[in-house]
Amino acid sequence: MNYNEIEILIVEDNPNDAEMALRALKKNNLTNKVLIVGDGEEALDFVFAKGKFSGREQTHRPKIILLDLKLPKIDGLEVLEAIKSNPKTQAIPVIILTSSKEEKDMVESYRLGVNSYIVKPVDFDKFVDAVRDLGLYWLLLNQQP
Amino acid sequence: MNYNEIEILIVEDNPNDAEMALRALKKNNLTNKVLIVGDGEEALDFVFAKGKFSGREQTHRPKIILLDLKLPKIDGLEVLEAIKSNPKTQAIPVIILTSSKEEKDMVESYRLGVNSYIVKPVDFDKFVDAVRDLGLYWLLLNQQP
Repeated sequence: MNYNEIEILIVEDNPNDAEMALRALKKNNLTNKVLIVGDGEEALDFVFAKGKFSGREQTHRPKIILLDLKLPKIDGLEVLEAIKSNPKTQAIPVIILTSSKEEKDMVESYRLGVNSYIVKPVDFDKFVDAVRDLGLYWLLLNQQP
Repeated sequence: MNYNEIEILIVEDNPNDAEMALRALKKNNLTNKVLIVGDGEEALDFVFAKGKFSGREQTHRPKIILLDLKLPKIDGLEVLEAIKSNPKTQAIPVIILTSSKEEKDMVESYRLGVNSYIVKPVDFDKFVDAVRDLGLYWLLLNQQP
């Protein structure tokens, strides 16, 4: 896999949710360049081209990052803060995709500069629709520098 | 009009573009609660419940603000900065909807914390589709505190 061509980074420790998201993107021909990582440390390694991703060009930015909140090693809010507080990475759209409807998670996410916050629909079909809609919106309509 | 019920604030000085956006929202039943203002000063008066909007409850926040960049009195980037640098208003999704594809406008918008940046399609039908898609995404899928 050529890490410089990744367009969608999914940060998700639940393999079922990651698989569902991938299937939803596949159904809409959005899967060519997706990378799934299972914890916050690996996500930051990818974004900042460190660790196993140190050969990657950091200037090749994904078009979106789908970020879960509850993650091993480094949690989603810390990942969000690291990306949004760095001028080199702050233009990458970060979409929180979480099961948390907690007010404090939403408030903190917006404070840290999240681009969009989506609560995972419990229903399978609705989850697939949500991932399709967000994929189409962020990949086709939104513009980045 | 009850300003406390406004869900969509359109900040646009070009009456044709404002009318097109309104029509696109109307076609998708998203128009009940839309306010159009023509300059940046009026936009900030609305958001911060000042001037002619001083009777409004500031805690009733719109679900989205569609913001043009080139605006009379106070320009779009200044409006964006004022909203995103204030803890009381930073959770309002601000979508720049502009004809500018200039790199510096995009970079600056993301630096100031824009939620999404959309270049207005020149083609009428595509413009209508873009406004419909962004309306559906931000009003139905995105969550706010």
